[in-house]
Amino acid sequence: MSDRTRFDLDQSRIPKAWYNINADMPVPPTPVLHPGTMEPVTPEFLNVLFPMNIVAQEVCQDRWVEIPDPVREIYKIWRPTPMRRAVRLEKALGTPAHIYFKDESVSPVGSHKPNTAVAQAFYNKEAGTKALTTETGAGQWGSALAMACNFFGLSLEIFMVKVSYHQKPYRRIIMENFDAHVFPSPTDRTHFGKRVLEEDPESPGSLGIAISEAVEVAATSGGTKKYSLGSVLGHVMMHQTVIGIEALEQMEMAGEYPDVVIGCAGGGSNFAGFAFPFVHKNLTEGKKTKILAVEPASCPTLTKGKYTFDFGDTAATAPIVKMYTLGHTFIPPGIHAGGLRYHGMSPAVSALVDHGDVVARSARQNETFQAAVLFSKTEGIIPAPESAHAIRAAIDEALACKETGEKKVIAFNLSGHGHFDMTAYQSFHHGMLEDYEYPDHAVEEAMTHLPKVPGA
Amino acid sequence: MSDRTRFDLDQSRIPKAWYNINADMPVPPTPVLHPGTMEPVTPEFLNVLFPMNIVAQEVCQDRWVEIPDPVREIYKIWRPTPMRRAVRLEKALGTPAHIYFKDESVSPVGSHKPNTAVAQAFYNKEAGTKALTTETGAGQWGSALAMACNFFGLSLEIFMVKVSYHQKPYRRIIMENFDAHVFPSPTDRTHFGKRVLEEDPESPGSLGIAISEAVEVAATSGGTKKYSLGSVLGHVMMHQTVIGIEALEQMEMAGEYPDVVIGCAGGGSNFAGFAFPFVHKNLTEGKKTKILAVEPASCPTLTKGKYTFDFGDTAATAPIVKMYTLGHTFIPPGIHAGGLRYHGMSPAVSALVDHGDVVARSARQNETFQAAVLFSKTEGIIPAPESAHAIRAAIDEALACKETGEKKVIAFNLSGHGHFDMTAYQSFHHGMLEDYEYPDHAVEEAMTHLPKVPGA
Repeated sequence: MSDRTRFDLDQSRIPKAWYNINADMPVPPTPVLHPGTMEPVTPEFLNVLFPMNIVAQEVCQDRWVEIPDPVREIYKIWRPTPMRRAVRLEKALGTPAHIYFKDESVSPVGSHKPNTAVAQAFYNKEAGTKALTTETGAGQWGSALAMACNFFGLSLEIFMVKVSYHQKPYRRIIMENFDAHVFPSPTDRTHFGKRVLEEDPESPGSLGIAISEAVEVAATSGGTKKYSLGSVLGHVMMHQTVIGIEALEQMEMAGEYPDVVIGCAGGGSNFAGFAFPFVHKNLTEGKKTKILAVEPASCPTLTKGKYTFDFGDTAATAPIVKMYTLGHTFIPPGIHAGGLRYHGMSPAVSALVDHGDVVARSARQNETFQAAVLFSKTEGIIPAPESAHAIRAAIDEALACKETGEKKVIAFNLSGHGHFDMTAYQSFHHGMLEDYEYPDHAVEEAMTHLPKVPGA
Repeated sequence: MSDRTRFDLDQSRIPKAWYNINADMPVPPTPVLHPGTMEPVTPEFLNVLFPMNIVAQEVCQDRWVEIPDPVREIYKIWRPTPMRRAVRLEKALGTPAHIYFKDESVSPVGSHKPNTAVAQAFYNKEAGTKALTTETGAGQWGSALAMACNFFGLSLEIFMVKVSYHQKPYRRIIMENFDAHVFPSPTDRTHFGKRVLEEDPESPGSLGIAISEAVEVAATSGGTKKYSLGSVLGHVMMHQTVIGIEALEQMEMAGEYPDVVIGCAGGGSNFAGFAFPFVHKNLTEGKKTKILAVEPASCPTLTKGKYTFDFGDTAATAPIVKMYTLGHTFIPPGIHAGGLRYHGMSPAVSALVDHGDVVARSARQNETFQAAVLFSKTEGIIPAPESAHAIRAAIDEALACKETGEKKVIAFNLSGHGHFDMTAYQSFHHGMLEDYEYPDHAVEEAMTHLPKVPGA
């Protein structure tokens, strides 16, 4: 039997601390603004939605933040995750490059999302929260938080985009199996949902509407319910860094160090979780790894959006942050990569792209699925459509090495499996997927709706 | 962080040989009979369906059979699989017992089935086979063989029970993603399928019909196509023993040895794969581990069937073997545990049950799903309905320990995950699952159709 293709760490190697990139950011932080006054928000304002221990993490400047034992105990179910070398893919491509991938698909709900879901459930439990609210699109985040709330005995209300609620019942049933209450959004449980239904009783819903409903329920609960978000915010990025911290140790086991580190990016959480520990090495140890974020051409936040202040949600009721944005009025088209449809991007990822520490590219849908199918046929694992964007970029980097003869080491994050996305594969095989690219004029038009932030 | 809950082996510990229980069987082997003449079959007869290297394995008496390197190379994608300790389940039960489980759900297609699929594809490739045929019910086996044939460049025709083909499209799409040709059975591609359709154009199909179609295509191909079976036969049991061989080493890592070893049993392959290496220790080293096979009360082959000669298929065209059987005319009711609906049982498992080396019990559907839900809520992993039978028995053994205060070590095989069975969970949560038990009088009636084997 030839070389090892899997690099496993013992449970004792589950990281003891998360990496907080705030401590190393090469640019000063930008303020979070109140959506009404456009003045910097107070911790008390954020505390309406989040417990103070999470608000504190959002502004924390410590480089390493200890992971509480109860969180590490639950991480033990699936962490450390494997780092694998895709030798069959390398061979199929005929590339001299070595391709590694971190396999976050092995978590019980099939993605990286539980890394922060478990942490958020823990901190809310510690803070005395009894119930959480959240939104979910296709259900990756909802199923992760449902599992986490189940472990800590928290009640959970999930506003699931109505069209997914009906078309993708499997993830909904997983959430319900973990005792979450799942509602097809828009609902008549909130003022905002009622307003949407009055205007369009047949509304299929959207992530923006679902966020607004989940936020409204928490904000009007008199403190009995808090809200939980699965991406974008700083504490979420930080919780995800267990991925990259493990990967660094596993690359050492493999005796290589990546020349290129790749993640797909929607709100930024799996990308940040995998890449930030490598960014840390670039920033503090002079490493020169290329850090690459890949997004869909249909939602090209980093590659066509503007780095500016914008609302975090479509209804313009969430805080304003500085980030790459397509405009909060951006309506994502009905592509299948459900997790990469946010109009904005993590402020931390955005700042690093703006500063040049992270580079971004986009990929069209069909070339993404071509990559996914080649990966599944060579490595066996059927990737999530989101993760397939990272695979596309890894393959393109490896093919470039074939041209130049360079033996680059390429590492990407497989953020999840595609077990609940098989109909998208069927559409691809039947030639029914669209290669929609978000047009420049639509971006320009959306920018006219940006908030008028004084001095920005 | 407290004790370890996961026991991983390095890739170098993937077993180098399968365990062949033929070498240790405490009773003499029984012959395989020709369905027409009822005389012992010749290798040439079996060679119509299987390549000679697989026929040779079927009658091999060597205790250890070397695993070819190309098979081990592919095993490296998911093997060695983790052995886990279910500490949260133990705590929820309040039992002094320790509960371990071998996690075969981590394979790319989510079950133990690739362990033999990869081996069979390899041996067929070696023998010059260009194309395989097989049948599948819900699709566990079909997706495993599709992946394996994809790796070895074999063409594959799969006859999928028509009702599953339409109701469970996800696993079908996985098979098609691996380039398999999937047909809803009964089809008009075979004489037998046409006959069924003439009698009932709306036939929903059955595993028995699908087997007959797959066998017919191979048998009438003039040697260009061979047939592959995912359970029951000796070589299939042997290929699966990588599970138990790894588990023995992992239990040693955990510093314990199981008092009880449990697997669910349909055709017997995941049960045999996990249990036979422990049976070996019982037979040759005087260990006294209780070896427990668990089957559905709706298909109680071992607990209500008869140990006798019967046809391997419903159409009475497959070889006759001595096994526990409910009669080849047995019509399995529409329960959800799709993989445990065979009328017979592996001859090797049957002989060990008859001899007293393996004990059997059955479990009703609702108590099985209760166990599955408790397991998922404590350990996070959503089990396949088949595997839930083993979980039910493990929980019952652990609860018995709670009564007696015994600190037994219980180990079961988690043969697969339930990602493609979520609608069954929904039915359970809505109280819509039936607790059907196969009635005694039906068993007696079916026994009147057994083949009249001279001298048996």
